[in-house]
Amino acid sequence: MMTVQERIRFGLIGAGRIGQVYGQILTGGGSDAELVVIADARPEAAQETAARYGIRAWSGEYRAVLDHPDVDAVVIATPTSTHVEVVKAAAAAGKQVFCEKPLALTVAGCDEAISATDSAGVTLMVGFMRRFDLAYQSTKQNIVEGGIGVPVMYKGIGRDPRRTTLEFARRASSGGLLMDMGIHDYDLARWLMGDEIVRVSVEGGCLVYPELAEVGDIDNAVVNLRFANGAIGNVDLSRNAVYGHDIRTEVLGSAGGVRVGRGTQTDALWMTEGGVAHDLMQHPGHRFAAAFTAEIRAFVRSIREGTPPPVTGADARAATAVGEAAVRSLDEGRPVMVSEVL
Amino acid sequence: MMTVQERIRFGLIGAGRIGQVYGQILTGGGSDAELVVIADARPEAAQETAARYGIRAWSGEYRAVLDHPDVDAVVIATPTSTHVEVVKAAAAAGKQVFCEKPLALTVAGCDEAISATDSAGVTLMVGFMRRFDLAYQSTKQNIVEGGIGVPVMYKGIGRDPRRTTLEFARRASSGGLLMDMGIHDYDLARWLMGDEIVRVSVEGGCLVYPELAEVGDIDNAVVNLRFANGAIGNVDLSRNAVYGHDIRTEVLGSAGGVRVGRGTQTDALWMTEGGVAHDLMQHPGHRFAAAFTAEIRAFVRSIREGTPPPVTGADARAATAVGEAAVRSLDEGRPVMVSEVL
Amino acid sequence: MMTVQERIRFGLIGAGRIGQVYGQILTGGGSDAELVVIADARPEAAQETAARYGIRAWSGEYRAVLDHPDVDAVVIATPTSTHVEVVKAAAAAGKQVFCEKPLALTVAGCDEAISATDSAGVTLMVGFMRRFDLAYQSTKQNIVEGGIGVPVMYKGIGRDPRRTTLEFARRASSGGLLMDMGIHDYDLARWLMGDEIVRVSVEGGCLVYPELAEVGDIDNAVVNLRFANGAIGNVDLSRNAVYGHDIRTEVLGSAGGVRVGRGTQTDALWMTEGGVAHDLMQHPGHRFAAAFTAEIRAFVRSIREGTPPPVTGADARAATAVGEAAVRSLDEGRPVMVSEVL
Amino acid sequence: MMTVQERIRFGLIGAGRIGQVYGQILTGGGSDAELVVIADARPEAAQETAARYGIRAWSGEYRAVLDHPDVDAVVIATPTSTHVEVVKAAAAAGKQVFCEKPLALTVAGCDEAISATDSAGVTLMVGFMRRFDLAYQSTKQNIVEGGIGVPVMYKGIGRDPRRTTLEFARRASSGGLLMDMGIHDYDLARWLMGDEIVRVSVEGGCLVYPELAEVGDIDNAVVNLRFANGAIGNVDLSRNAVYGHDIRTEVLGSAGGVRVGRGTQTDALWMTEGGVAHDLMQHPGHRFAAAFTAEIRAFVRSIREGTPPPVTGADARAATAVGEAAVRSLDEGRPVMVSEVL
Repeated sequence: MMTVQERIRFGLIGAGRIGQVYGQILTGGGSDAELVVIADARPEAAQETAARYGIRAWSGEYRAVLDHPDVDAVVIATPTSTHVEVVKAAAAAGKQVFCEKPLALTVAGCDEAISATDSAGVTLMVGFMRRFDLAYQSTKQNIVEGGIGVPVMYKGIGRDPRRTTLEFARRASSGGLLMDMGIHDYDLARWLMGDEIVRVSVEGGCLVYPELAEVGDIDNAVVNLRFANGAIGNVDLSRNAVYGHDIRTEVLGSAGGVRVGRGTQTDALWMTEGGVAHDLMQHPGHRFAAAFTAEIRAFVRSIREGTPPPVTGADARAATAVGEAAVRSLDEGRPVMVSEVL
Repeated sequence: MMTVQERIRFGLIGAGRIGQVYGQILTGGGSDAELVVIADARPEAAQETAARYGIRAWSGEYRAVLDHPDVDAVVIATPTSTHVEVVKAAAAAGKQVFCEKPLALTVAGCDEAISATDSAGVTLMVGFMRRFDLAYQSTKQNIVEGGIGVPVMYKGIGRDPRRTTLEFARRASSGGLLMDMGIHDYDLARWLMGDEIVRVSVEGGCLVYPELAEVGDIDNAVVNLRFANGAIGNVDLSRNAVYGHDIRTEVLGSAGGVRVGRGTQTDALWMTEGGVAHDLMQHPGHRFAAAFTAEIRAFVRSIREGTPPPVTGADARAATAVGEAAVRSLDEGRPVMVSEVL
Repeated sequence: MMTVQERIRFGLIGAGRIGQVYGQILTGGGSDAELVVIADARPEAAQETAARYGIRAWSGEYRAVLDHPDVDAVVIATPTSTHVEVVKAAAAAGKQVFCEKPLALTVAGCDEAISATDSAGVTLMVGFMRRFDLAYQSTKQNIVEGGIGVPVMYKGIGRDPRRTTLEFARRASSGGLLMDMGIHDYDLARWLMGDEIVRVSVEGGCLVYPELAEVGDIDNAVVNLRFANGAIGNVDLSRNAVYGHDIRTEVLGSAGGVRVGRGTQTDALWMTEGGVAHDLMQHPGHRFAAAFTAEIRAFVRSIREGTPPPVTGADARAATAVGEAAVRSLDEGRPVMVSEVL
Repeated sequence: MMTVQERIRFGLIGAGRIGQVYGQILTGGGSDAELVVIADARPEAAQETAARYGIRAWSGEYRAVLDHPDVDAVVIATPTSTHVEVVKAAAAAGKQVFCEKPLALTVAGCDEAISATDSAGVTLMVGFMRRFDLAYQSTKQNIVEGGIGVPVMYKGIGRDPRRTTLEFARRASSGGLLMDMGIHDYDLARWLMGDEIVRVSVEGGCLVYPELAEVGDIDNAVVNLRFANGAIGNVDLSRNAVYGHDIRTEVLGSAGGVRVGRGTQTDALWMTEGGVAHDLMQHPGHRFAAAFTAEIRAFVRSIREGTPPPVTGADARAATAVGEAAVRSLDEGRPVMVSEVL
């Protein structure tokens, strides 16, 4: 009889919105993972989440996770502003590290995190889960195989139906629209175009939620991109797509193109006197559920096999650099070379 | 700390194509189930499947599952022609019974199965998983709430990309196209229209795979439906939709309509000189993965709460009756009242 | 300098709903036609229509059109029940004849019309304009070239948003749902499948407009088709698609398939909190405007070149025969061979 | 009997690609126009076009059109670099003027043209035909009625399947990608957002056709927009959308959004083993045929009724200004205020 492979045992640090998603993935099927302990700075959140997923151990201190004898690896889903501190502590404790995006709010922070995990000899992977979605996987593969010729333009759309809390939107906490939301597209752009972003130019503002200005954030932006080889792109970001989460990606090449992202929640089409309607994605967690699972599975595999993770600290650092440059472009009203923030 | 609810422990009988799907669902997350033993008449299939899902116990005899002390419930995924025998044995062993569709090839067989589970006081649920899909759930709810007025026409499309094995297609084994494939639509039609099918009228034939005629099957059919209240419908079935699995449903009412089923496998749209293309569903298991899980969860809930399952033996019997009438309509070239086969 | 070809001069008989469409086509660009006189049994309708299209001559008598010295050809758009009489009179007057579908309510009527135009040596073409639509043209061509292998199933949907007047719906006037609406699909089915329909089997009824029963009509029907070579099909017809005109066609073959008919009126997609919506076709005249023009141009060309028209009296007769068989199938509750009505 | 209104008699100046489109519109139905003379600097092109549309008078000199006694109005479809000269001559001859877009390559040129027509007391309308498309009309109306709340982001896509001739691409002739193609979107953006564009920022380059660099043009660009009230936008332009003409527009507002432009050529959907495919627009003339006709009809109406045309010289000037600013932004690698070019 075949041997059943041992699962990697995880601790989850952070039980907020994205922490819940990882809680479900780590206890669901297919992730090759086992969740053994949960921590959150709010003890009751840790306790509730532990109960929800049938986990016996929980704590109000993230260090309890690092001290747990059964924990091989951690998923860090705390506020972005705390990532560097937690990554360094986890590395020091010898844990394998999976950190939610963005790795840090600055390139300097990314460097600290990468250095710490390198020194400790542990894996560092960052959560750009879109790369693991089937549609994006097939897109990447087809581009690599020349299916659209030379890629010349990247177009990204990332829109949420409403603003986050003011606390979350704060630049010093999440990095704001251009960093926290934009970073998914900066990463996809680098990955799908197979090239580095070298310049960004932003128009943006507080057009729907004036209160965001008080915490240094905006609600709408368009970000022009220039790549090292001359290719170009644009990302639009919004916090007021009231019709649903709207995530679309398009790559135009010299011999064709590809579009990803219709983003319906279900497959139903309603026909009434008012017209014909379908829903739009209300819960991106559903849209990317399989991608999150595939992502964790890839992390587990890289740990087991001792190979580099598919999304590295260097990837995270490059995307954060674009985010920093975008913020500066908005602030200074000019195109900013990414090299200016390195 | 909250108590973690005990999972219902399952045995899986049958490790063929659909058995694999249930193996994955029962060991995946979200099903509230735990799989403890697997049986298949081909011992090596049972062993491999057990290994794949990390299950320690397996057997070449389905009775080994019924004798297993930890098994609360069984999923029966054997050939349709054996369902009645296995259901009766499982009921006699006091197991809760979940049986893949069709429950039986004849109304008489359904009656035997229902009678056996009723006598034993165990639950009998039948696997019409489409009812548990989000799109169909919202469709049903909207129709019940009057969203399309009075339903007057049901349209169903069920097409596979290629024929099954001749052994499977055999009428005496699976029931053939009009029974094995059509039954999903007979069930959806009854459920969504909220009414019984009273008459069927079939055109069909062996148009692409002449060899199917040798085992008494056909590869294409259109089935006209008449409901008790006068509403009408049509189901088209095919074994040669080379472009992918094509499952579509439409209900037209006096005040609107609904269409379900675009059936793309991923969200990508490819644009080349040849035109614009998207893929179509290649693995219906993916399309209905969440539905299968919701289905098993509903079965588990009905066991725990002692409530009737959402799909009953009576539902299965009604759908099988339509299938029997459809086969007779094809054979005799005339509309057949469903009452003729009861 | 090149000579400008003389236009064929038309008289329009019938200024009702479809007569208006032809009035616009004949006075619009691209039809190679010139409209010189209009008649309608309601003189004021003839006068108004003439004024709308800038035509100086009009009459309350269709014979005035046939007596007009400048008229080369007529478009007959009177009630179907009068087609045979008018076609015969036009043929006797030596006019080229274009007759709106259905040519007649019975096969016998078709025979009379065909015989009269044959004897007079004038062209007879019947208005199945869908054949001239670009999408259907490319579909036909692709099927002929083997693009979907052997066609095995025809599926048609023809739905109007509301019922016609009771006067129009009357079987003795328009032929009712199974004849007047269904005939478009009977013609497309013959043309696209490249085969004759030999058997029909109908379910239908008055499900939304009970008053239709008083004039012998129904509002919903499904029509199973069997072709001479064994292929099958189904047409659904409805008078209560409140969301718009819904015309869809699908042909499934052994090596692929084709679907025609999304039927949006404009290209706009509206995204609101209620979901994402597009409109549906409200005016089929718009959808098929180019097809109507191409149809008349084809008629003009066949007159000029002395070649058979692309849609013949024999085509019209075959479609009417299917309609007659469908009505009989509904009345007698059994499959009817088309040969029974020949 | 009603009087038939006299048609406005047109001369067509320019028989190139867009001149052919106007030739067809002016001789087709529905435009309320009559074409009486055609001129092109290439006499044989003028002659051929005249023959194609059945027009007796043609010339190799545009002044022959202005001298023609029956001409009330002219359509100017010559190279953009000649527009100002021809508009001025037509105005001096007292003709009503319809000029293809862009009105001129510079704001100064627009001023000359506007001044000349103002002085002569003739109408000047410029050919932004997209405004007359049904989808855009409904979009504009819905936005004005508050259907999407406050518009905050404009997104435009304008892509051609291949590059133009080098002669046409030359900046000094057509204005190049940022002027000649972009101007449609600059106009739509102003019109749909109900606001002026005040700043543009461009990334672009020769990525597919290096030979375009020799004539001062590029093949791909992304243009960030800022509006007076703070709203933002982006337009992407490409000459290598090999899959077809791709024209898409999207407006995001505080309470919803709208997308226009699926851009299929026909309604057919092809399903093969390779997937499911539809075509994409190959001939934008077809897509906008009705819009072109509506545009000319609106021009005729404004002449007859003595009202301002729906698209004015001021509109054309504003769009040209954005184009000039965009070219400067590309050249200087910085955001350019539109006020810098006024």
